[in-house]
Formats: sequence, C-alpha cells, structure tokens
Amino acid sequence: MSLSCSPDFLGPLLGSAANSTAAADYICSQFNAVSNKFIDTGYAVDNTYLLFSTYLVFSMQLGFAMLCAGSVRAKNTMNIMLTNVLDAATGAVFYYLFGFAMAFGTPSNGFIGQQFFGLSRFPSLSFDYGYFLYQWAFAIAAAGITSGSIAERTQFVSYLVYSAFLTGFPGRTDNLLFGSGVIDFAGSGVVHLVGGTAGFWGAFIEGPRMGRFEHNVVLGTFLLWFGWYGFNPGSFFNILKTYGKSGSYYGQWSAVGRTAVTTTLAGSTAALTTLFGKRLLVGHWNVTDVCNGLLGGFAAITGGASVVDPWAAILCGFVSAWVLIGFNKLAEKFKYDDPLEAAQLHGGCGSWGIIFTALFAKKEYVNEVYPGYTLAAHLVQILVILGWVSVTMGPLFYLLRHLNLLRITHEEEMAGLDLTSHGGHAYEYPPVPEDGNGTLKHLGF
Amino acid sequence: MSLSCSPDFLGPLLGSAANSTAAADYICSQFNAVSNKFIDTGYAVDNTYLLFSTYLVFSMQLGFAMLCAGSVRAKNTMNIMLTNVLDAATGAVFYYLFGFAMAFGTPSNGFIGQQFFGLSRFPSLSFDYGYFLYQWAFAIAAAGITSGSIAERTQFVSYLVYSAFLTGFPGRTDNLLFGSGVIDFAGSGVVHLVGGTAGFWGAFIEGPRMGRFEHNVVLGTFLLWFGWYGFNPGSFFNILKTYGKSGSYYGQWSAVGRTAVTTTLAGSTAALTTLFGKRLLVGHWNVTDVCNGLLGGFAAITGGASVVDPWAAILCGFVSAWVLIGFNKLAEKFKYDDPLEAAQLHGGCGSWGIIFTALFAKKEYVNEVYPGYTLAAHLVQILVILGWVSVTMGPLFYLLRHLNLLRITHEEEMAGLDLTSHGGHAYEYPPVPEDGNGTLKHLGF
Amino acid sequence: MSLSCSPDFLGPLLGSAANSTAAADYICSQFNAVSNKFIDTGYAVDNTYLLFSTYLVFSMQLGFAMLCAGSVRAKNTMNIMLTNVLDAATGAVFYYLFGFAMAFGTPSNGFIGQQFFGLSRFPSLSFDYGYFLYQWAFAIAAAGITSGSIAERTQFVSYLVYSAFLTGFPGRTDNLLFGSGVIDFAGSGVVHLVGGTAGFWGAFIEGPRMGRFEHNVVLGTFLLWFGWYGFNPGSFFNILKTYGKSGSYYGQWSAVGRTAVTTTLAGSTAALTTLFGKRLLVGHWNVTDVCNGLLGGFAAITGGASVVDPWAAILCGFVSAWVLIGFNKLAEKFKYDDPLEAAQLHGGCGSWGIIFTALFAKKEYVNEVYPGYTLAAHLVQILVILGWVSVTMGPLFYLLRHLNLLRITHEEEMAGLDLTSHGGHAYEYPPVPEDGNGTLKHLGF
Repeated sequence: MSLSCSPDFLGPLLGSAANSTAAADYICSQFNAVSNKFIDTGYAVDNTYLLFSTYLVFSMQLGFAMLCAGSVRAKNTMNIMLTNVLDAATGAVFYYLFGFAMAFGTPSNGFIGQQFFGLSRFPSLSFDYGYFLYQWAFAIAAAGITSGSIAERTQFVSYLVYSAFLTGFPGRTDNLLFGSGVIDFAGSGVVHLVGGTAGFWGAFIEGPRMGRFEHNVVLGTFLLWFGWYGFNPGSFFNILKTYGKSGSYYGQWSAVGRTAVTTTLAGSTAALTTLFGKRLLVGHWNVTDVCNGLLGGFAAITGGASVVDPWAAILCGFVSAWVLIGFNKLAEKFKYDDPLEAAQLHGGCGSWGIIFTALFAKKEYVNEVYPGYTLAAHLVQILVILGWVSVTMGPLFYLLRHLNLLRITHEEEMAGLDLTSHGGHAYEYPPVPEDGNGTLKHLGF
Repeated sequence: MSLSCSPDFLGPLLGSAANSTAAADYICSQFNAVSNKFIDTGYAVDNTYLLFSTYLVFSMQLGFAMLCAGSVRAKNTMNIMLTNVLDAATGAVFYYLFGFAMAFGTPSNGFIGQQFFGLSRFPSLSFDYGYFLYQWAFAIAAAGITSGSIAERTQFVSYLVYSAFLTGFPGRTDNLLFGSGVIDFAGSGVVHLVGGTAGFWGAFIEGPRMGRFEHNVVLGTFLLWFGWYGFNPGSFFNILKTYGKSGSYYGQWSAVGRTAVTTTLAGSTAALTTLFGKRLLVGHWNVTDVCNGLLGGFAAITGGASVVDPWAAILCGFVSAWVLIGFNKLAEKFKYDDPLEAAQLHGGCGSWGIIFTALFAKKEYVNEVYPGYTLAAHLVQILVILGWVSVTMGPLFYLLRHLNLLRITHEEEMAGLDLTSHGGHAYEYPPVPEDGNGTLKHLGF
Repeated sequence: MSLSCSPDFLGPLLGSAANSTAAADYICSQFNAVSNKFIDTGYAVDNTYLLFSTYLVFSMQLGFAMLCAGSVRAKNTMNIMLTNVLDAATGAVFYYLFGFAMAFGTPSNGFIGQQFFGLSRFPSLSFDYGYFLYQWAFAIAAAGITSGSIAERTQFVSYLVYSAFLTGFPGRTDNLLFGSGVIDFAGSGVVHLVGGTAGFWGAFIEGPRMGRFEHNVVLGTFLLWFGWYGFNPGSFFNILKTYGKSGSYYGQWSAVGRTAVTTTLAGSTAALTTLFGKRLLVGHWNVTDVCNGLLGGFAAITGGASVVDPWAAILCGFVSAWVLIGFNKLAEKFKYDDPLEAAQLHGGCGSWGIIFTALFAKKEYVNEVYPGYTLAAHLVQILVILGWVSVTMGPLFYLLRHLNLLRITHEEEMAGLDLTSHGGHAYEYPPVPEDGNGTLKHLGF
C-alpha cells in the first residue's frame, strides 16, 4: 500500500489508549515527515540525473564542432566553428526569452505558449531550472545537426535568424510528434525529417578532403555517441519512478538503462552493417562511411529507444544501414543533386525510425513510458505525418533554395567565407582566388 | 514537522495499551531506522552529485590543453602540454600533502590549517574524500587558468614551484573571498584578480597565429563550458538539502539548476555582445574574440552565479563583454604592455563580477546559500578588497617581473622552449635559429 | 535496528487498544511502504551512479582514439581510427549476444555461462541493463588498450575476430582474478597481464614521430584519466550501501571517493617520478614519457584502488614509474625486440599492481569491499597466478607471432594500411612506395 497515514483511521483503532487521537496524530505526523523527505529525495535524485544528462547532451556541441573540423572544406573552418559557438549562445538567450515559453507555456490544448517567457514564474511545481536547461541543450543539439552544412553556404545573418528561430520556436511537445500521437521519444521528429533539408551531413559535400582530418570525424562521432547517452536515456527526465508497485527491481531506472542499451546496439549494428555492406557492394569502405552508418543508426533508434527490446534495436540498426546505403545509391542514380545527404540520412533513417517504432514498440513498455497511450493510432497517423511533411516542407525547401535567400553567391562560395571576413583561414592553405571586394560582403552582413 | 520520534512523548499517549512503553519504543525505533536510512541516502546522493561534478571540473584540464594547443606559438606547444599534465599531477600530490590542510584544516578562526595533512583523520563527519577531490579539481582548474601563458615564458622550475604553491596554499575558504564576507561563490576571487597577473589569456600574445588552430580554441572553449557546469553548480557540494520546509518542489536541487542557467546565460550573452560589439567597433570579428567574450562572461558570473536571477545573468554577460572590449581598447591606447590580456579579462571581468554580485544578489537566494549573511557588508568591503589587491599584488607582480625571476631569457624565448629541451617541436615548423647551447639550459633546469 | 515492522510483535503491545491487531497492521503497513520506497530510491540512486560511471568509461574510447591519432605512424591513422570505432561497435553486438552470458550467466561454480545470451530474462533481481552496459564499456575499454598497436600490424579480419573474442569471452568475474581469490578490483588482470602481449603502447613503436602530434597524446591521456574515474570508482557498481551500521557518515559512498583519490594519487605520483627519474637518468624527458608514466601508475593502482589508503597509492605510483623505467632499460639492454612496450608497461606495472595490492591492502577495507575475504590466500596465490600466466600465455604469444597469424606482411607494413585500402591517408604525407597490388590485400580481407 502507499505511504499515507490517516489519523482519522488510526485513531479509533487505538481507541482505548490514554489519548488515542493524539497518539494517532503523532504517529501520522511522523509518517508525514517521512513522506516529505521522500519528496525531497526524489527531487534531488531526479535533478542530479537530469542535470548530468543535460551536460552530456551539451557535450554533443563538442561532437558537432569536431565533426565540422574534420569534414568541412578548410577555407570555411573558421566560419563554421563560429557558428558552432553561436548556436549554443544564441540558443541560450532565445530559448530563455521565447523558446521555452513557446514549447511549454501552453495551457491545455493551445498552439503557442503564453507563459514562462524569460523564465517568469520559475521554478514551479511543473517545471524546474534543470528541465529548462535540458530542453535548451536538446534544442541546440538539434540546431547543431544542421549548422555544419548550412554555414558553409549560408549568409551569416540568415544563419543567426535560422538559429534563433529553431531554438525560439521548437516543435517538440510531450515527446509526441506534432502532438499527433506518434511516439517520438527523443527523436525530435520535426528536426530529423524537416531539418533533413539542411542537415549537417552536407558537410560531407565534397567528400572527405583527401581523408585528411578523419581522426576528427572519429572523435566527433565518439563525442556524439557519448552525448547521445544524455539525449536518449536522458529524455525520461526523471529516474526515480516506479512502474506499478513500489519495492520492485523493475522501474524507470531499468527503462533508462534499457534505453541506453537499445541506443548502443542500434548504432553499433548500423556501423557494422555499413562496413560489411560497403565491402560487398563497393569492395572497400572508409571510416567516414562507418561513422555515418553509426550516426544513421542512432538517428533511427532515437524515436523508439525507450519502448523497444534490445533485439529489435539490432534490427533497427541493420535496416537503417541499408536504408542509408540504398538512398545514397538512389540519389547517385537519379543524379539527385542534394549534396547534403540530408534526405538520405535524416529523411531516410529518420523515417525508418518512425516506421520501426510503429512496428516494434512493445505494448508493455509503451504503457510504462506513455501511460494511456494506444498504439493503434500510431500506425494510421504515421502516413498522415509523412504526407504532411512532404507537402509542406518540400516546397518550402525548394522555394528558399530557388530564391537564393539562404545561399551566398557562387563567387563567395568559391573564395571561402574565412578569407577576408575573418582575417585568414583556420588552416593554412594554398592561396585561393581573392575576389577583390571588401571585407564584410562575404558574410552578407 | 521533522522526523524524530520520541518514545517519552508517545508512550503516555498510548498509556492504556497493554505495554505502552514497549509499544512506543518499538514504533520509535522503526522511525529511527527510517531516519538513519535517510542519512545514508543523503550521503549517497550528495556524493554521487559531488563526484560527478568533480569529474566535470577535471575535464576543464582538457579544455585548457585544447586552448593551449590552439593558441600558443607552435615552438612552445610541447612544453605547454607538459605543464598541463604536471599541473594536474603536482596539484594532486601537493594538495594531498598540504593544500587541503592549509585550506580546511583550520580550527575556528586561525589563518593556517593545522590538520588533515596527507588526509590524516579522513574521512570525518565534516569532510569526505569526494570533497577533497572536488577541491583538488577546483584548485588545478584555477592553476590551469594561468599555466598557458606562464609556461611560454617561464623557467620550468619556477613553474613547478608556482604550481605547487598555488595548489598547496589555496586562498579559498568558505566561498567567501579572503574570509571577508564578500560573496565569491565559485569565483575563487583570489585567482581571478590576482592570477590575472599571469592569466592564460597570455596565450594569445601574438594573436591567433594566422587563425591556424582555431578549431582547437573552439573545442577548448566548449570543454571549459562543459566543465564550468561542475565548477559553478558543483560548488554547492550537495544537492539533497531543503530550504525551509521539507516536501516542497523548491530546494537546493532547484538552486543548483538555477546556477547552471545563470552560468549559461551570462557566457552566452557575453559571446553575442562581443560578436555584435566588435562588428560595430571594428567592422569584423573573429572566433577567438567570441570565445574570449564567452569565457569573460563565465569569469564574471562565477562569483554570483548562485545568488542572482537569470535576467541579471544576462545583464552580467552584457556588461562583461563591454568591460573586456573597453579594457582592451584602453590597454591599446596607453600602450600598456601587458601582452597577457590578463588585466583586462580577469582583472576586468572578474572585478565586474564582484561588483555585479554586490548589486544584483537576491536577498532570498543569499539567505538560502549563505544562511545568516548580510548583504550590507558586501557593498562596503568590496572596496576594501579591491584596494588590498591593488596594493599588495600589484607590486609583487612588478617585482617578480623586474627581477626576471619568472622569465626565461630573451634568446630562449625566441628559440622556443621545445626545440632542444624536448627533442623537437610539437608541430612541424620551419626551422628556427638554434642557439647552439646544451639541452637543459632552455628549461632553466 | 533495521527497518522491519512486525505486526505480530506490535499487536500485543497495543493489546488493550480498541482494535490492537488492526492498529498494528496499519502502522506496519505504513512502514512497509516506507521500506519499499527506500528500495525504489536505492535503485534510482545506484543506477544513476552506475550509468554515469558507464558513460565515463565509454569516454575512454575517445582517449584511445586521441592517443592513437597522436601516436601511430601517419600512414596508418585512418585504419587505426576505424578499429577504434569498430571496437566499440563489435563489442556492443558481441557482448550482447555472448559476452555478458559468458561472464555472468554461470550458475554457481561452472566455467562457462549458460544464460543471458542476447540479454534474455533481463532485467532480473540480480542484473539490470545498467550493469550490462557498464560491463560492456569496461570490456571495450580493455579491448581499446590493445587495439592501437595491434591495428598497425594486424590483418583486419584477425583484428575483428580478436575484438569479438575479447568482448565475447571476457575473463572477468567477481573482481577476483581468475576466480582465484586474488583481489583485482577494477584491474581486469587478465587484460593487463595477458593483453600485455599486444598492448596499445605498441603505438609508440617508432617513437613519437618528430613530436608532431603530442598535443593529441596529452589530450588522449587526459581523456583516459577522466574515464578512469568511471573505471575504478565505478567498479563498485552501487554507492548507496552501508558498511556496518546505518546513519553513519562512512559507507560505500566514502569508499567510492577514496578510490577516486587513490587512483588520482598513484597516476600523479608516477608522472612526477617519471619526470624527475628521466631527468636524472637521461638528462631530459618528453611529454610522452610523462604521459606513459601516468598511465602506468593508473594501470598499477587499478587492481587495489578500492582497498588501499591514499599514502599507499603514492608509494604505488612511485614504484610503478621505476618499474616502467627499469623494464624499458632492461628491454633496451637485452635488445628484447618487443616494440610494443607492452611487456614493460602492462606486464611490469600491472604485475607490480598485483604485488602492491597484496602488500598494502588494508584489512578493514578488504572486509568492506570483499566481505568474507581473507588476505592470507592472496599472498600465496599471487605466485601461482604469475606462474600460470607465464606458462600459458608466453607460449601462446610466441606461437601466434611466429605463425605470422596476426601480422600483415612486411611490405604491407612498409606501405601502410591506409594507402589503397581506405582510399588515402588520414593525414597528408609525402608519397610512400605503392606496391602495385589490388585494394583489399592490404587488409588481408
């Protein structure tokens, strides 16, 4: 039974005691004190868990920076590093001012937030600072996914606007994609499907430059792996929660561990599948392929990590690798000119992740993680979502692209963004043709 | 009410029970067991929190190493890397032997510690190993701040002495600067103000070498950001503590989260302000400026992070950026030959941080974090402190400098410390003039 | 007394109350609820502690990658980076399929596991997902120790088999080496002694290449130091455990902290001893030496970190440095052609660690960490173990070596593994002679 002592109930039981009412009051007040101490303990434990998960998610910024340092063309390194720092910094300010309010300040079913701007009325029974910080780290991690490639061809002001927008108007509520009832645990489906339009995979545009900085790619991948343990298991927000009865070895702590395991297995399987798949198809492989495969596996499992069994995660990773290989093959065949691989990796592996979750989510786990949720809806709505994204985001992407609103001019792209604007290259490089123009034009600023 | 069961009180209440004294004893012994279990739980939770905070602070060593790798002149990289490792290692041994005892072994109001040398009588009710380790990580982080620039021009033995001294005789007690009553939460005001004499910002002496290793600067900055989550929120030492009444959602866990938020916002705002400020003033900017701005914001907020509101942290960061820009401008104008930027960043932003705390500390938070503290004293003493530091540390700095006790000879500085002493450069570089001398002279060892 | 309320006992005490049996039932059911809530809390706290320790151990992968990036010959960087990623990925899949079952699925005294393959019947009262993940991270860290050097001269398929084998058939049970009763806390003695046959120290074969990437060596060393805080203190698996009586400040949380302290002191002392030792013997030193010394100190303390006092850890590190220096001297003298330094560092420092533990383990700590253990056995069995390892592993090592089963051909070694197999070098380098053969031969795949 639960811990709640009723003096009204206990008093009569002690009826013939010298002062039965006072005795019952006294005993129950002790239990009340115990109950309150458990509340305190719960807050301390859950915040410890949440804050360190937040720091792990934050460390993904390091991963993105490393990945960028290893992947982008040398002439743009300095620019891209700057955007990495600014992602986190603008993200913090805008998420504080608007973002959190937009995402969580909505009373009942409204669309846009109406409270918590600038963390007003914080903390409350519902939200504490740790929760805000986790959501910020999550939002900038999502932004980081796209920053790499965008920066290489984007006007700097557009980038700042984009970054502020992405963190200021997050689409994530309640871990259910678009509030539609599609399970998207830590997947931020919006970002993976939509953000696919400008994913950081674009960083690989020109291929790994003579394999020159692959150790940075590997380190970046490992850092992302490290941070993903904050991203997926951390998305539970608390760890001290029972499922059903108290005193059992099985509770949210176990589900958190399981989520870390499914994440690990999906990524690992995808890496190995890519290794052997490429070996079979192309005759060789390279470390960037394997890292890409690994990250594709993580992208795929992220939506369902908390509600599937480990064996299913292996399947998820296996298929994910083939999805990535297949989409890359397809893109090559149709000369589909998306140098970003974004459609392939995020569109591909991300979509597979949503389908995978619909197919393999275990009812028992779903009930624990999303109490009252019915899987039936999931299977129907997945198609609606995919259609909606295609219809709305596709045109937007092409519109922006054709209006050249996002891109710097061809000449600037050739010259590289670092050269004059930032006073030099981040790496020493043979001279590139200077366009003879002033300093600031290069950044469109 | 609190959890403490009194059989003497409960017994008479149960007076007419068959054996009322035994019944009361039994019930209360159960509550005693509960109470003890809460003590155990508290130790486990707080130590988990403290130890992982310690590891975060330790990761700042990585940040310093990265920053150095990206900032110092190539010819000195190897030397500087060595000092990074030795900072941590000598720090551990000396902090074990003397440092902790000096800082925490003082009975009542004495000046110098008299117990805990070599961790004797450890652990005790007051101090556990986790606390020692946190203080060590904190001390070497403080040492790390200065190691970068010092190493580039310092005789190696002097450096070892300095490092041992800094960690062996820390000035930090009770989070109150010089025990004076000035709030200096995690600020280690001594280090920021005094250590400013030889800050690691000196690493930037010659400017970013053609922007060549800026990705390392960015990675180093991110690692320091990551580690600062141990430095500031970790300085609470424990997380399972109520403020006022038990059972409320607001307690130290919430203050810990708020501290992480204020830290984030101050650094982020300072970075953005630097970006736009430099844009307005100079017409362009570079990533090192932005990173410097960010770190200046962190330095400024560190002293008051736990006792201010998030909106105030934004103000703190905003002003901090202008302080740094202004002092840099001033230094330039007066041809003040401090290539270290130490006076600017630590002296400047650090001082602003102390003033900021005095102006914006929220009484409610101050009472929670420093029970019994009165803000009034703060406003007066700040001036005393600033005066004292100027009077004592300024001359010391100039004395050491003019006696050439700290610096290697000009020839050695030209040749670089790596060349002969360590058997080569850390980076491959065009040959520098060899001075034809023996190996060890270069390190003054 | 412990928290367990007996209504049968309490009832009669309340005998003359109106309904004494019901009152006792009610009061005790409240205590039962409290007791269950403590169980929940314990799981949450211990899993938080264990999972974040796991993530720290995982971060050692980053350290290995960094160390490799800084140490191996440039022509092999890409290959070695790939093996780093694959270590973790194959490790995850194989440890899930077989490894955990092999190590922990053994009923009573059997040799090979018989349950838990593919994490079947997981979680249980004995094992939770977090525990699995910790063991995996531990196993791949062990694998990582050897991957560096192996990769530089190993056929790729052999490597995959090796990696799968090492994580699929771990030798670690119960923290007692070979189940023999020798304390080997987090030491994985098997790996350090046996794995010495192909340690990653081999990465230093050709010496630091002109000191070129020493900053990576330093960063790698720091990352390993960071991760070792998961490796050693994390090996307790839980932190909320009393030693003796409840309500005392001394419990497992304190032992965890002490273990972090001993680890820190041993490594630090070894680094400093190496610095001054080399200075005395050779007249100079380099940063790689100091890093090696540090890691040797960690290797030595790992086995006994939890059961010795801090002062003993300093002695451990001091001797460890001289052991490493001595063995290196010896190897040089006898022209013992083990380019790996593995025998020296792992054989040497690892063995010293086992002897050290036998000599300096404190009975009080041993009783806490290994209840019921008697140190007497230790002193005898250490010799048995050392003999057994020499007799069985020595021949195996030479057999494998002379059969050339592990090594690539001399020509391939000259050309480097990266060149044709992976489509280029990880670093830009002057051209090396191409052998004119097809792509895949280089990897023996």
